[in-house]
Amino acid sequence: MRVVDLIQRKRDGEELFREEVDSFLQGAVSGKVPDYQTAAMLMAIFFSGLSEQETVDWTESMLKMAPALDLSGLPAPKIGKHSTGGVGDKTSLIAGPLLAAAGVTVPMIVGPGLAHTGGTLDKMESIPGFNARLAAKDLVAVLRNVGLAINGPTAELNPADRKLYSLRDATATVESIPLMAASILSTKLAEGTDGVVFDVKTGSGALLKKMTDARRLAQTLVTVSKRLGQRAVCVLTDMDQPLGNAVGNALEVMEAIETMRGNGPADLVEISLELAARMLLLAHPDRTVESAKEQMFQLLKDGAALQKFRQLIEVQGGNPQVVDDFTQFPTASDEFVVSSPRAGFISRISADDIGKAAMLLGAGREQMDAKIDPAVGIVLEHKVGDRIQAGERLCSIYYNQETNVEEASQMVEDAFHISAAAPEAHPLVYEVIQ
Amino acid sequence: MRVVDLIQRKRDGEELFREEVDSFLQGAVSGKVPDYQTAAMLMAIFFSGLSEQETVDWTESMLKMAPALDLSGLPAPKIGKHSTGGVGDKTSLIAGPLLAAAGVTVPMIVGPGLAHTGGTLDKMESIPGFNARLAAKDLVAVLRNVGLAINGPTAELNPADRKLYSLRDATATVESIPLMAASILSTKLAEGTDGVVFDVKTGSGALLKKMTDARRLAQTLVTVSKRLGQRAVCVLTDMDQPLGNAVGNALEVMEAIETMRGNGPADLVEISLELAARMLLLAHPDRTVESAKEQMFQLLKDGAALQKFRQLIEVQGGNPQVVDDFTQFPTASDEFVVSSPRAGFISRISADDIGKAAMLLGAGREQMDAKIDPAVGIVLEHKVGDRIQAGERLCSIYYNQETNVEEASQMVEDAFHISAAAPEAHPLVYEVIQ
Repeated sequence: MRVVDLIQRKRDGEELFREEVDSFLQGAVSGKVPDYQTAAMLMAIFFSGLSEQETVDWTESMLKMAPALDLSGLPAPKIGKHSTGGVGDKTSLIAGPLLAAAGVTVPMIVGPGLAHTGGTLDKMESIPGFNARLAAKDLVAVLRNVGLAINGPTAELNPADRKLYSLRDATATVESIPLMAASILSTKLAEGTDGVVFDVKTGSGALLKKMTDARRLAQTLVTVSKRLGQRAVCVLTDMDQPLGNAVGNALEVMEAIETMRGNGPADLVEISLELAARMLLLAHPDRTVESAKEQMFQLLKDGAALQKFRQLIEVQGGNPQVVDDFTQFPTASDEFVVSSPRAGFISRISADDIGKAAMLLGAGREQMDAKIDPAVGIVLEHKVGDRIQAGERLCSIYYNQETNVEEASQMVEDAFHISAAAPEAHPLVYEVIQ
Repeated sequence: MRVVDLIQRKRDGEELFREEVDSFLQGAVSGKVPDYQTAAMLMAIFFSGLSEQETVDWTESMLKMAPALDLSGLPAPKIGKHSTGGVGDKTSLIAGPLLAAAGVTVPMIVGPGLAHTGGTLDKMESIPGFNARLAAKDLVAVLRNVGLAINGPTAELNPADRKLYSLRDATATVESIPLMAASILSTKLAEGTDGVVFDVKTGSGALLKKMTDARRLAQTLVTVSKRLGQRAVCVLTDMDQPLGNAVGNALEVMEAIETMRGNGPADLVEISLELAARMLLLAHPDRTVESAKEQMFQLLKDGAALQKFRQLIEVQGGNPQVVDDFTQFPTASDEFVVSSPRAGFISRISADDIGKAAMLLGAGREQMDAKIDPAVGIVLEHKVGDRIQAGERLCSIYYNQETNVEEASQMVEDAFHISAAAPEAHPLVYEVIQ
């Protein structure tokens, strides 16, 4: 088998056999297959796609190279969560504690943010002292004690994904749906869980801006997970405006805490409860959606989730006082208020632009090795559908360095679209695929 | 401008600007753009194509990196010829002398064969003593004396093509029509001619097996040549069965000589005269096709072309006696006769398989640096449409080494399809595009 023949067959829309996928990927990761052939294959896949069977094979082949996390000593059920990411997405910080409070073990292996804003890892690290770089055995101990751990990868978890992702990033092949699915699955399925809830976001602030693409990814994730013996469900959610009001690492943790105190913004509460209920259903398939949602709502209301979150922070070395005293978080030195230039309805808030503005302030990374500022960010005062007066405050920008504030504030102002008529409401949850 | 953005735009079917094409190609050749990004771009082009303007820009950008051959001191008109190649294609050896005999200067810069059978360079080098590796100034001197020279590249003629071709070869992107066109044009237009006749072949023995692909290449070659200020015409010809009877280096030169003696096989005579007449018309656009063909036919019949060929051999250091005495050519030690297993009509002779069989005997290269045997090859006794008896001789295999003869002879036997009914005749020249 010559690699060029495999590329040609994929280019011509033919299906590759399991052993061919395996040998190609082994070669690509070991360096036996030169990067230029891997790049050509990735672009051929971008255009020709991968069949369901090929995606299963591709994922399994990547998984074989990833040392799995051994959670076999922990009580079942163990449920994971994955989000394709969006601006202001702090649902993991709420759903994780909720599930742990319900007796489900939730290993959250999270990464730093690759896009505009920080990832869950960056958010948790904005809590003073919090250690999200535990070794595998310490991670297992935290899971056993708390039922929840939020931690970065414990090892070079997924060498195949590292290799392919850096090539995809440089060759404009990130957006291939089957490659995205294999990348996500080869990471998530190595975490030793019994089931995973996927949150695939669509809209201006999501990687997949078109609903059809998001739905294809969602279906692939669920189908391939099941073929590989995992319980799986995917929730298709809106990412056209930022989720909740806060965008920025410490600001988002504060908002998550407020939400677990019962004071969360409506959209964040709704999506967090939906995702948490779907996780609970994967753990207990005999339950009904209604009873699962009801239980999650109770655990949010009665402070059980917040209690779990406090416990998690303490066990992972963080300062648990942040939960009751936000001044313990790193705070920005300055604030800039963006006001509405005219009266009307907010018809759109471009999540993409809010994310880029937050990155300019230092809340996200432009390069992979850039340092982020945990304190800075943007807090929206109004969301889509709100009626506002001219000069009314739209949002606050929190910053430490003057440098990019003008550009960021202009970007934020442009992100708000004001119109005369009230916009049509979007659903927050478009679809649940299982 | 980031390279990944250019790849993405091309991937999404957008058009690249001239400066973008230029900067990408400069980077790809210098190594500033890594090969994996070049490979991804090539595959994106395979799928998304290049517009006419992009193909012009891509070709010009390659040309800028190729030092042109300076033929300005030679009398006009200077006309080139290019064939996409096929099994048994020795038309250059006939058209070149014909044109020189008609007073047109013909610089034939030829390469070694990259496919199954030898290239024009290999064929000429089967003539004992023939030197096809002249330096530029000696090449110009031969052209001045004879009006014709057949020679390999005089310098690293086309670094961009070398770089891109080796990547395309390894990434299954050879078959991209605009990349093929840019590759051919960036080489041919650096040769300092006033016009070029392109012979694009289609059929089982051609690189482009489908007529639609061949026609697209032909149109692109002519359009882009004209945009770059060259006279150009393209002849679309059949390559479904081998051209003429001989396949193999010295055997093909002998057949070319026989043709210039007036004893050529009908198909070879027809296509050679067509191509030569089209070259003459490019040199003298005021002439009619009929008068051009008539003149070419006369120069073939009266021995003027053969006289030019003899002169060329002598001037380039070869043994001119080969023209009158074929025993002066390297000859194979053994012959194997392939006979028809049954009576009927020859309905097909797969040029592809004949070519592969010739390569197995040593007439072509499997690897680029393989040595070829000038003496070996295959001589057909019958062509498509011929009625044959069971046991009648189909062809002779000439070989020096026993090793692959059995496999080659089986391949040759399978290449001949015998049917009860007479097949429909193919035209030899499908179309002339100008």
